[in-house]
Parts: sequence; structure tokens; C-alpha cells
Amino acid sequence: MTDIAPGAWAASLTPLNADLSIDHPALAAHVRWLMSQGAGGVAVLGTTGEANSFSVAERVELIAALGKAGLESKRIIVGTGACAAPDTIALTRASLDAGFVNVMMLPPFYYKNVSEEGLFQAFARTIEAVNDPRLRVIIYDFPLMTGLTISTALLARLRNAFDGIVVGVKNSSGAWPAMEDALAQLPGFKVFAGTEQFLLPTLRAGGPGCISATANVTIGALAEIVTRQRDANAEALQTEATRVRLALQQFPAIPALKELLSQSTGRAAWSHLRPPLVNLDGERVQALRAATAGLRLSLPV
Amino acid sequence: MTDIAPGAWAASLTPLNADLSIDHPALAAHVRWLMSQGAGGVAVLGTTGEANSFSVAERVELIAALGKAGLESKRIIVGTGACAAPDTIALTRASLDAGFVNVMMLPPFYYKNVSEEGLFQAFARTIEAVNDPRLRVIIYDFPLMTGLTISTALLARLRNAFDGIVVGVKNSSGAWPAMEDALAQLPGFKVFAGTEQFLLPTLRAGGPGCISATANVTIGALAEIVTRQRDANAEALQTEATRVRLALQQFPAIPALKELLSQSTGRAAWSHLRPPLVNLDGERVQALRAATAGLRLSLPV
Repeated sequence: MTDIAPGAWAASLTPLNADLSIDHPALAAHVRWLMSQGAGGVAVLGTTGEANSFSVAERVELIAALGKAGLESKRIIVGTGACAAPDTIALTRASLDAGFVNVMMLPPFYYKNVSEEGLFQAFARTIEAVNDPRLRVIIYDFPLMTGLTISTALLARLRNAFDGIVVGVKNSSGAWPAMEDALAQLPGFKVFAGTEQFLLPTLRAGGPGCISATANVTIGALAEIVTRQRDANAEALQTEATRVRLALQQFPAIPALKELLSQSTGRAAWSHLRPPLVNLDGERVQALRAATAGLRLSLPV
Repeated sequence: MTDIAPGAWAASLTPLNADLSIDHPALAAHVRWLMSQGAGGVAVLGTTGEANSFSVAERVELIAALGKAGLESKRIIVGTGACAAPDTIALTRASLDAGFVNVMMLPPFYYKNVSEEGLFQAFARTIEAVNDPRLRVIIYDFPLMTGLTISTALLARLRNAFDGIVVGVKNSSGAWPAMEDALAQLPGFKVFAGTEQFLLPTLRAGGPGCISATANVTIGALAEIVTRQRDANAEALQTEATRVRLALQQFPAIPALKELLSQSTGRAAWSHLRPPLVNLDGERVQALRAATAGLRLSLPV
């Protein structure tokens, strides 16, 4: 029984205090706000959430704090994939302990040119070590960041080996053919698009939806695509969502999204990034204002 | 006062127990053996040492155990660079606590296409947080694994900001032009080649030497190049060392090197790898035997 809500998911940003520690109350508030605007769910501690810039202890603390926020487990996915298997195992256990059974696992991403067998073993040993029947794993495939490719064959092998545990993939390749292949060859597997550009095509191919960074500021329009996917104007809504995505995509994603939230809320929690990410400079801030003027965004106040 | 021994350094493999935990006594023995064969020094917890496949706690334990092995600080470099700044800080402090002042720092390697300013801030904040005048930092530049480039300009900026602390770079780009540029523009900066292919050219350009994975099995010949760098036959020794390197380079480095040590010592500690790395299959093992037959290797027994 997989129990992950379908729809347009946001990959949440992580608000930070001035000393770059995590602002837990601000994160819980943002997650609740995204859900209130129609998000199918919220993925925390992904790439957009700067997960790999936090120690395991910091991430465990975030997970535990969020566990107390009264959120539905089926509407939360926690990123737990790290380079070191013991870290992935600890984070996955922390997620289960907090009541969140859905995790999103990057492959161990330091080494490149590794074999499919090696990647299989890495996922398999981790899942076996966690050894919890409640666990639901979404494989997190982000070739630009990891330098690795997760083939449909590897996904099929993992699903066969861990039936009911490995239940899906977040495909952040930005390439529709890879998604289409997984959707066609793995019926019932939850193939989430990593960008809302493919939200409607994914839904129409039987996929659950998308998990997107830009959904932090576009969730209303995306939720509407999900609700109206069978309406006559669904294509037009998708075209508009794609236009907004492409406008935002000209900017470094995480700094630009934090800038937009910082502007709309006036909260300092959105104006900090952990290096190597840095704030947009003044010129880029102006360009972002220009590029987003007149676009339909969903922004908290 | 920088106090890092010049010469041919080995980037040590990490021997593992059957449960994939670290075999600390076997590591100390291997480090001592490498030094006894003429290694200028030994870098532990680098790429070859599978550093990023271990949790911070496991790495701290390795560092502490090695600290009790009676090794000279100037002949040890400890890899401490991680994606998350708190991890790099903890590992660097552990190294200093164990009496090892020389560390090798990867940039935070998850995010790609980050700015030079972001990379500078990442290194700078970490060094400032450690805040220990004993510290000596070798920037670890391995574009194939990190997807990042460390420019000579960034190295110069770091050296200027942390004079006497940021003292060198390990350039594992495999490209001589980048090394030559750093050697020419940063006199006195310790530019280590990441491969023995450039050992003699590096020494002749005023560099300290190399830090190499394959030195785990070729250290004798490399030490001879260092000793005889001004002899008439130095070029011939380098040509031969390059030939051996290229023969070994046909194989996945870490599995092949562990296989060679496993064969020569018969010790199980050399036959284990953490996924995503996996052992060579039977065919590759045969090919490795064929490729190394007749080559001058240095192997413990």
C-alpha cells in the first residue's frame, strides 16, 4: 500500500537564522502555507532545501521539529540520501521516527562512473539496514547535481527487490524522454516530474504529479492544473505555468526563490543561504523583479 | 611556516572489515609500510580512501586511531572536506586534536555551477570557524568528482586571505596546464600533482611532488624519481612511472588497487569496498593480472 498524495508538490526551501542555523518554526509555517495553497504535499530536505549543506544532526533536528507540526505523513516526503550509507540510514530512521514514512533518496553522489550494480547495492543495503515495513522510498534522480544516471532498468530492479517499499522516482533530469520511459515501463510506479513543465504530461501518462523547486512561489497555479487536468483549458494553464517556470529558471534557483519570499514576507529567515550558495547581487535582484513583473505567483505575506 | 614534507605521497586506501567498518590497525600498518618504502607522506581520507562513504563519526574515529600510531604530523594529510560546513569543521578539528595539522579540503561538492564567491565563502567560513593557527590547508581540486573548478584566482584569493594557513592545492584535474598555471602564478604555494604522471615536471617547476592513488602500489619507483630528480636518468624513470600509471588507469582505481593489495597480502581487509564501489569481476581481475605482469610494483606481503 503506497500512501503518497498525488498532485503538485513543492520542494521546500529551508529558512535560516542569521547564524545560518535552521529556523524551524518558519519552516513549519511555510510547509503549512504551501499546503493551504493546494500543494499535494511538500518535500523537505531536497536540493532546494539545501539538505546537503546541513550536518546529519541538523537534519535530524529539522525532521523531529517538523514531526511535531501536526502534518499528514502522506503529504510529506523527507530527503534522506547522502554520500555515506550510515548517514542515509540515520536520516531515514529519523524520518520514520518522526512519523514520516515517505523518503526521497539520492544515490551516494561523490563517485562518478560507478556501475549500476554498485548503485543497486548502495540503495539495497541501506533499505535492508533500515528494515522497516512502513518505509516508502522515492528514488531521487538529479543527474546535474549527482553526475549519475538512474536508468529505468535500475528502478525496475529496485522495485522488484523491494516491492511496496521502493514506490517511485523523482526525475529531475529535466528531460521528458527519461520520464516517459519510466512511466511507460513501470506502470503503477510513482514517477514524479522534477519540474512543473511536465506536470500535465505526467498526470496524463498516469504519473502522480511533480515535485518542484519553483512551486515554492507558483503553487496556486500548479494546484489548478491538477484540479482542472481534464478541463478544456488544462493545456492553456500548463502553457502559462511553463512560461512562468522558464522565466524563473533564468536565475540561480534557490537564491532567486529565497529573494522572492524575502521580498513578499519581509522576513529575514528568507534572506540567508549556506555557502556555496550566495544571495543574488543587486543587478540580479533588479532583473528578477523585471522578469517576474506581471507573472502569476503565489507568495506568502 | 608550512611544514608539509615534499615528495611522492600516497593517497591511502582504507582497509575494511567484512561488515564494511574500518580496519584501523590495518590502516596504520599500511601507512607505516608506505612511509618505509619512501613515501614523502600519506594522505588519508581522500577519494582513494573512500572518505565520503563514511559518516563523520567513523572518520573521526579513524583520525583518532591514526593519531595514536606515532606518525609524524608533517608526513600526514587528512581529508576533511564535506558538503556540509559543520562536517568539514568537525573533521578538521578532529585532525588537529589528533596532532595532524595538515588537512586536504574538498569544496562543498553537491551544488554545481556555483560562483567563485560562493566557494570562497565556503572555505573562508570553515577556516574561520576552526580558528586554529596550527592549521595548514591543502585545497583539494578534483573536478571529475566534484563537478567544480577551482581557479588559480580563487587559490590566490584564499592564500591572501589566510596567509600561512591555506598553503597549497592538490590538483587532481589530470591536466598539466592548470597545474603549470598555479605553479607559475603562485610561487611558494604547494601545488601537488594528483597523479605521478606529472611528478618530475612538478618537482622541476618548484612544486612539492604528487599525491597519488596508484602510489599505494608504486611508491618505490616514485620515491626514486624524487631522490634522483637531478640525475641523468630521471626522465627515464618518469617515463616508466607514467607507463605503469597508464596501465593501472585502465581499471576502476580503488577496486583495482584493493585487488592488488588483496592478492599480495592475502588479507581480507583489502577485499571489501563500500557501495557504490564494487569489487572487480573475474574477467577484470584476469585483465588486471595481465596488465600488471612484468610491471615494477611495490606491494606489501
